[in-house]
Amino acid sequence: MIIVLTPQATDKDVDELTDNLKSRGFGVHISRGVERTIVGCIGVLDTEKAELSEQLQALPYVERVVIISKPYKLVGRAFRPEGTIINVRGVEIGGNRLTVMAGPCTIETEEQLMETARFVKQMGAHILRGGAYKPSTSPYSFQGMGKDGLKLLAAAREETGLPIITEVMDTRDVELVAQYTDIFQVGTRNMTNFALLKEIGNTNMPVLLKRGWASLIEEWMQAAEYIASRGNYNIILCERGIRTFETYTRNTFDINAIPVAKELSHLPVIADPSHGTGKASLVPAVAAAAIAAGADGVIVEVHPHPERALKDGPQSLRFEAFAQMMERLRALAPAVGRSI
Amino acid sequence: MIIVLTPQATDKDVDELTDNLKSRGFGVHISRGVERTIVGCIGVLDTEKAELSEQLQALPYVERVVIISKPYKLVGRAFRPEGTIINVRGVEIGGNRLTVMAGPCTIETEEQLMETARFVKQMGAHILRGGAYKPSTSPYSFQGMGKDGLKLLAAAREETGLPIITEVMDTRDVELVAQYTDIFQVGTRNMTNFALLKEIGNTNMPVLLKRGWASLIEEWMQAAEYIASRGNYNIILCERGIRTFETYTRNTFDINAIPVAKELSHLPVIADPSHGTGKASLVPAVAAAAIAAGADGVIVEVHPHPERALKDGPQSLRFEAFAQMMERLRALAPAVGRSI
Amino acid sequence: MIIVLTPQATDKDVDELTDNLKSRGFGVHISRGVERTIVGCIGVLDTEKAELSEQLQALPYVERVVIISKPYKLVGRAFRPEGTIINVRGVEIGGNRLTVMAGPCTIETEEQLMETARFVKQMGAHILRGGAYKPSTSPYSFQGMGKDGLKLLAAAREETGLPIITEVMDTRDVELVAQYTDIFQVGTRNMTNFALLKEIGNTNMPVLLKRGWASLIEEWMQAAEYIASRGNYNIILCERGIRTFETYTRNTFDINAIPVAKELSHLPVIADPSHGTGKASLVPAVAAAAIAAGADGVIVEVHPHPERALKDGPQSLRFEAFAQMMERLRALAPAVGRSI
Amino acid sequence: MIIVLTPQATDKDVDELTDNLKSRGFGVHISRGVERTIVGCIGVLDTEKAELSEQLQALPYVERVVIISKPYKLVGRAFRPEGTIINVRGVEIGGNRLTVMAGPCTIETEEQLMETARFVKQMGAHILRGGAYKPSTSPYSFQGMGKDGLKLLAAAREETGLPIITEVMDTRDVELVAQYTDIFQVGTRNMTNFALLKEIGNTNMPVLLKRGWASLIEEWMQAAEYIASRGNYNIILCERGIRTFETYTRNTFDINAIPVAKELSHLPVIADPSHGTGKASLVPAVAAAAIAAGADGVIVEVHPHPERALKDGPQSLRFEAFAQMMERLRALAPAVGRSI
Repeated sequence: MIIVLTPQATDKDVDELTDNLKSRGFGVHISRGVERTIVGCIGVLDTEKAELSEQLQALPYVERVVIISKPYKLVGRAFRPEGTIINVRGVEIGGNRLTVMAGPCTIETEEQLMETARFVKQMGAHILRGGAYKPSTSPYSFQGMGKDGLKLLAAAREETGLPIITEVMDTRDVELVAQYTDIFQVGTRNMTNFALLKEIGNTNMPVLLKRGWASLIEEWMQAAEYIASRGNYNIILCERGIRTFETYTRNTFDINAIPVAKELSHLPVIADPSHGTGKASLVPAVAAAAIAAGADGVIVEVHPHPERALKDGPQSLRFEAFAQMMERLRALAPAVGRSI
Repeated sequence: MIIVLTPQATDKDVDELTDNLKSRGFGVHISRGVERTIVGCIGVLDTEKAELSEQLQALPYVERVVIISKPYKLVGRAFRPEGTIINVRGVEIGGNRLTVMAGPCTIETEEQLMETARFVKQMGAHILRGGAYKPSTSPYSFQGMGKDGLKLLAAAREETGLPIITEVMDTRDVELVAQYTDIFQVGTRNMTNFALLKEIGNTNMPVLLKRGWASLIEEWMQAAEYIASRGNYNIILCERGIRTFETYTRNTFDINAIPVAKELSHLPVIADPSHGTGKASLVPAVAAAAIAAGADGVIVEVHPHPERALKDGPQSLRFEAFAQMMERLRALAPAVGRSI
Repeated sequence: MIIVLTPQATDKDVDELTDNLKSRGFGVHISRGVERTIVGCIGVLDTEKAELSEQLQALPYVERVVIISKPYKLVGRAFRPEGTIINVRGVEIGGNRLTVMAGPCTIETEEQLMETARFVKQMGAHILRGGAYKPSTSPYSFQGMGKDGLKLLAAAREETGLPIITEVMDTRDVELVAQYTDIFQVGTRNMTNFALLKEIGNTNMPVLLKRGWASLIEEWMQAAEYIASRGNYNIILCERGIRTFETYTRNTFDINAIPVAKELSHLPVIADPSHGTGKASLVPAVAAAAIAAGADGVIVEVHPHPERALKDGPQSLRFEAFAQMMERLRALAPAVGRSI
Repeated sequence: MIIVLTPQATDKDVDELTDNLKSRGFGVHISRGVERTIVGCIGVLDTEKAELSEQLQALPYVERVVIISKPYKLVGRAFRPEGTIINVRGVEIGGNRLTVMAGPCTIETEEQLMETARFVKQMGAHILRGGAYKPSTSPYSFQGMGKDGLKLLAAAREETGLPIITEVMDTRDVELVAQYTDIFQVGTRNMTNFALLKEIGNTNMPVLLKRGWASLIEEWMQAAEYIASRGNYNIILCERGIRTFETYTRNTFDINAIPVAKELSHLPVIADPSHGTGKASLVPAVAAAAIAAGADGVIVEVHPHPERALKDGPQSLRFEAFAQMMERLRALAPAVGRSI
């Protein structure tokens, strides 16, 4: 850890700081430049650095503290350089084969879910998505079917053989949802719901962790570390777009985050171009882009009748559009050294 | 609701749309322009508009849907034009007198809390803040004292007579926290934790609702509506800065949000310049700015020794700085027609 | 144009507005809803709409004005649905063949430029880039070689046969730069330098127009319209990343903007992953992503010794990395129906 | 300058780096930690640091370079700790007395300008603003009256005695505009038009430099440094709002930037709440906030008939609203130790 003092810092300040750090058991290394003094602090545990850094920055003679190492270890690339493959009922996520997760935003009726499940299965999707508990900006919007939705999902798995993924939003629901789903989804609004992350960390279930819409990539890594630090390493990262000044699209899909996440972490990375764009017409192009950039797969919203969807109609692919997207990805996969 | 069709929309499309809307029981009003047709849809309940809008936008011949009315009613200014005053153990929030909430970011020890409580009381603060459950970006940072912290807070109230405010992060903790605190705090990371909002809505306890760091002002209003729609109207809005490209400050305090929130809602509005700037040296200036812009008060972090604080040291005011800020606000209040 | 009145608007207000609009020669169409009245205004020229809209919004009884049509025509997709191909000394930009523009950020020495030009030519690049006039955040940084740099560029074209592209920043330099370059570059910092856009519009030279780092896609289209409205249609759009809260990368490359720009406009679209990421290690992945999303080519920075570059070293590709990127794009092109 | 090496850096790398730095004439200071080595580089001129930093970051064994000192000197607070007062025809900007600049966005007619000038003068404004050259997002919008507008401005000064401020957008217009105006305005779109900044730096005229809508505070300081480094120190900083995800307001006025700019620089700081909010109803509150935060004055748009304004009607104050704002500021000034 490097502590940069202000130009006004006196020798007394340097001594005080040195004593302070030594009394905590750290090594100290002083470097006096022309304009200011820089103090290296050696032996601080990575897990202590954020706290110590804030404390030192509160000192009047400290201008800045620079932390070198990453605040996450278990999900860091160095921890498992070869990468992580997560096996969900035989579907490998993070391996050579790309993973396509597809289904409706929200489970509305048995018919809607089954029709979609059968179609996406037939087109080659590997995982079925569907929301039973829905985060809605408005309290007056549909909040999801809850447990009945979970049952329908399980029935769809039964019929199609596709493993399922569904969102969990409340610590109190983790146990129930775990009885039905194969993969938890943590939505963008709950990436910083640390109580929820801890609860999921206590299970050993696979979890798809969406990046918060205004979370730094390194905060996303730390959210994953919350789960891993409880012992659950079955984490799938999901970039779903961030909030920027641009209003033409619902979010700005952060394509840079794909190769960055692969550099920083050993975890699989999935792209969500449905939320990343908010417009069905843009989904196939951004899905292809994410695969070309190194993503391990995509998660997309598909609906038999988007104009009747209870949620996310504008970004849901019609069946025909989903079929075309699959064709596009099928052409692309070998060109980037993957299968599908 | 106004539905703008694409230039390519045919008469058949218009007929289909008309039938669609009429079959749902809505009135239809067609206006044919030179380039395109615009359809007015009459009789849609405000609570149905978001859903209907998304459905219509999924139609290929619909270019855009414009919703006129606000998606919140109970917290809207029109609902209670005279404004809301919330009484917390005799302290009125939202009235003529400004409210100052102050205290440490995190409760660390009895001594730290008591010393701070006594000092801020002496300087004229009205409410004592202190975190027992702490949201931390890193799983390795201090997560708060939990129930022990709540007990210390209650003891500080006992001694100083100051009502207390503390954060709740987990639906499972609402009941416990309610036994100790006078005001719930919902932090910026949980503004979209709708399960938590609902649970708090089920109580009748005052709640300070911080704006999400990347939430639109109108989403913040809807988060408040989640609480109000469950019957709890004791909501205090809190602007605490938003995330922007600027990195010199921790957040960008959105001063515009103060008069906007007062225009849109009847609820009291409090400013948090500690998080809004991230630097103690900037807190007094931004606190004064918020009051000048019409805020009903401020919430600030104060610590006897910021350089030893477990959290938020750089933005915590030393005692002397807090005293100076109070003096500044005391000079300002009458100039803006308020007392303190 | 749709004018939404406030709920408080009176019949007198509606009459006043109607008279106002009719006196300007427009048709008026009134639709009274339950809560408020909506006024359609017919016959406004697209070029008048922005101004009229602002005026009406200043009326106390007007809540909002909704403009339907796009504020650009000449660069809009409908103007030339088949798309535009720009021919630069035999290199077609916007056709089936992808275009690779490569070269150093800044022209430093004859040797540096020639060495790079020869190498990128050999690897299959189609256009040589190099900056003679450099926009630098600091006044103390290198400002470019100016006219001497232009001469070196022309010499490099002479030797390699590659057409050249270089930035122009000052209206007074347009004439001089035009004597050397084949394509003008308008940098992100000058997208809203309208005097410069007009001056370039007065030439008939090809111009690569970078999106402003905080400009909406539709503002970028209007910047292009500035050039086109002067008679110069030889415009190439270039997405180069936008400024967001994320700091791990220099900018956030807006991959959505690629398919959006192709939908909205008939102009060729080029991606700049060097500025879009700021890190050489990320450039090939994002270049591939842009091509997969439908871009017509890329522009990248290449330097023989990035550690000695006067500018943009961290994002400049070493020769070997450029060769690898070309290989990657070569594998990708046929999978997306393009040649290279 | 501190150079942080990657954990993989070898002794050979450290030697190479040391030789590299020494050959450039710099001192070297090596500090080996447990995980990585940190190299201090001593004796680099501030004006060389940006360039050297980029070069070093391009080395494969360098993870990060940390620059300590500020990249601006002449406009930095340390250069003139007592602050700068700029005298414009007897009006002092930056002293104890607050400065109010007011007038129409755009000069439209003699009558409109004169009527406004007389009124704002009567209400106590100190400087008259008015645009003769207008930056418009659309090429089809009004581009300003040009030289005729300048003449009207000068006539208004003649009559009212108010010094005048007007925007210049093109290097070729600097000489002409200087013949009429008392203060140049550099608009937000031209903060990074470095050719323009240099040209203005070559004059000795006062200039109001608006912050770019997506420019970091420290980039704004460097833009000021461009002007100062040419010898012109008569610079007035102006915060006018930044572009964020919030859409309810036109921009987000960055109130933090006021005390930050006062800390970082000795230059006067003016607030533009008209552009900072985009809504006339919010202007007085944000003007008051800026003054409370330490701004030296405000610049606001005033129009006799906003509903007929050619530009910026929604954010232009009617006469009555301007009079009320002046009253509000008059009450506020003594409470913050200023006169008006």
